[in-house]
Amino acid sequence: MSATRSSAPAYDLLAPLQPPTRYLFGPGPSMVHPRVYQALSKPIVGHLDPFFIQVMQDVQELLKRIFGTKDASILVISGTGSAGMEAAVSNFVEPGSKFAVFANGYFSDRLTEMAKRQGANVVRLEKPWGETYADAEISEFIRRERPSVVGYVHAETSTGALQPGRAICAAAHEVGALVIADCVTSLGGLAVDFDQTGIDIAYSCTQKGLSCPPGLSPLAISPRAMDWLRAKTTPSRSWYLDIKLIHDYSTVSHRYHHTAPISMFYALREALQVIAEEGVENRWDRHRRCHRFFVREIEAMGLRMHVPTEFRIPTLNTVVVPAGVDEPKVRKRLLDGPGIEIAGGFGPLAGKIFRIGVMGPLATEDNVQFFLKEFRKALSAEGYSI
Amino acid sequence: MSATRSSAPAYDLLAPLQPPTRYLFGPGPSMVHPRVYQALSKPIVGHLDPFFIQVMQDVQELLKRIFGTKDASILVISGTGSAGMEAAVSNFVEPGSKFAVFANGYFSDRLTEMAKRQGANVVRLEKPWGETYADAEISEFIRRERPSVVGYVHAETSTGALQPGRAICAAAHEVGALVIADCVTSLGGLAVDFDQTGIDIAYSCTQKGLSCPPGLSPLAISPRAMDWLRAKTTPSRSWYLDIKLIHDYSTVSHRYHHTAPISMFYALREALQVIAEEGVENRWDRHRRCHRFFVREIEAMGLRMHVPTEFRIPTLNTVVVPAGVDEPKVRKRLLDGPGIEIAGGFGPLAGKIFRIGVMGPLATEDNVQFFLKEFRKALSAEGYSI
Repeated sequence: MSATRSSAPAYDLLAPLQPPTRYLFGPGPSMVHPRVYQALSKPIVGHLDPFFIQVMQDVQELLKRIFGTKDASILVISGTGSAGMEAAVSNFVEPGSKFAVFANGYFSDRLTEMAKRQGANVVRLEKPWGETYADAEISEFIRRERPSVVGYVHAETSTGALQPGRAICAAAHEVGALVIADCVTSLGGLAVDFDQTGIDIAYSCTQKGLSCPPGLSPLAISPRAMDWLRAKTTPSRSWYLDIKLIHDYSTVSHRYHHTAPISMFYALREALQVIAEEGVENRWDRHRRCHRFFVREIEAMGLRMHVPTEFRIPTLNTVVVPAGVDEPKVRKRLLDGPGIEIAGGFGPLAGKIFRIGVMGPLATEDNVQFFLKEFRKALSAEGYSI
Repeated sequence: MSATRSSAPAYDLLAPLQPPTRYLFGPGPSMVHPRVYQALSKPIVGHLDPFFIQVMQDVQELLKRIFGTKDASILVISGTGSAGMEAAVSNFVEPGSKFAVFANGYFSDRLTEMAKRQGANVVRLEKPWGETYADAEISEFIRRERPSVVGYVHAETSTGALQPGRAICAAAHEVGALVIADCVTSLGGLAVDFDQTGIDIAYSCTQKGLSCPPGLSPLAISPRAMDWLRAKTTPSRSWYLDIKLIHDYSTVSHRYHHTAPISMFYALREALQVIAEEGVENRWDRHRRCHRFFVREIEAMGLRMHVPTEFRIPTLNTVVVPAGVDEPKVRKRLLDGPGIEIAGGFGPLAGKIFRIGVMGPLATEDNVQFFLKEFRKALSAEGYSI
């Protein structure tokens, strides 16, 4: 064999990759634990290697505890949280079937859009962004519509509102419907209580409450939803997100379906292990305490929260933009100065709220104080007098 | 705020993540360059951060060179190669339309399955696994069927056969059809020549010829395919894989679609940079030289290649299992002993071939010699006399 050609490379080369330091106080992605970065950089093995099969099993076991389930089937979709949403919809919402959506934010609109693309008949109970549903209106809606599948968003990232699921699941089961719960922003940061709530299909992501980079989507599926799926005779429209095939690869036969993102599974296993070491209840307590501290300080600054006290997501705070303040300018100051990322509102909440996540490694009193100091400075610079 | 609870963690903890050392001589995932692991572990930023937008643009520019295109739109799907296949099919193969598939291996069967799930009328030109198509039969098939879309697999991972695309694209364009090319195993290891071949939609993966972990799927889309997509009035059935929305997020407005797997994009940028530093033509030469060396040595051992000389994939060698040798036992010896992963055949080739990848960092004469020494030992131990 001759030596490699000695000619210079044909292309201009890019500068080395040097990400700026960012404090991720937005709705996600959130800060990643240093141990998770270490796991990401471990050498990969094959997707059918006995070692990798064990990693998938470890991940499933650890996720059970965090979802709060004994009996659900756990699988992990090789895509982001939105892929998990599409997996839920494309496997369980059939063309022509009735899908009832509690529509109070951006992600319930996305559920609606996905279900329409699957050919479903979507009915919606609309509320302004940031509001939640009371038990009576839930059961009235579901009894009236008698859908086959019900969808709701547990922690709505676009508004900061938390929707309890128990009344939804009870009413849905009364009419024989399956329930899909979007737990993208809740899993890992607060209790999902899959079994106790009565959820049939919950999907989430890795990059919010689990403190892992984005790239995978954990799913929990109740025994009755798995039975329904096994009995279904028409295949799902999506092959890549076909839960029967993925469940078989990752849990039953380990027969090849696709080449799983090995490094991301390493990262997820480590992130879940970090959570297990802290203890999930301890972790939820820590987030709740930080949330209460955050709200107290925000209100002491004369600012208001967008969502009423009892329906706030503890890990994602939505703060009303004070009159006269230009929201994008505040965010730009925070990003360009101390390197803090927060988000604004969008849709009907564009310009009206800041979305401030306090999750994972950032959920300590010190970190919240660091954030608030910089937030005060940025608000002052934009004309808000505290 | 009170201190974190001091109680012990509620769960049994797992052992630290310690992957075994593997030499990935299979069809993929392949070995990853050490610099790519370093990039993977760099701190993440938000998916709308100006730094990340730049990373996406860098990746698109670097991919253009590797696809061999000046004018194609490049985007990267947040899923594995199979997600790229589904993106191609679900955006370009419409319900009721005719999709012509050159069916000579597992991945053309998967294309068929995905298109059927999209409601397409699939017509297939069948060949035994490992064979390829001559120009005359290609144009005869396409002129007879007059499909809307044509699909073929450039480098068929299940057989080791390489299908040149020029005659397929010419015939397809003659009847006004778009051409989807599966370049999962070719991109980065050999020339795809997107523009010269006349491909309309090519999808690939990160974990074979690009020497990056699995998790993303690069796509190239010709101007005429983009025009067709823009003119299409019915939305694709998949929202997650909707190319119009992903193109808008990653290239045009940078409006939020989904939270991209930041770390995987870092890794891909680094992997592409490593390739640019070597020079793509140098890299392809290196793979070709290693392939010729591999074949010479294999034939010197009295073994036969499954595919005729002129249609072999240079990065993925399929070697006929000699009579009397138990293929899974040879693989188990290699994995349990020196930690070498290779693959067997499946479907009609189960038990009949070894699939041996020589890609990226492993494509050196020294590494091939290391492999062959261990391969000889394993074959001898299983009763084959060399």
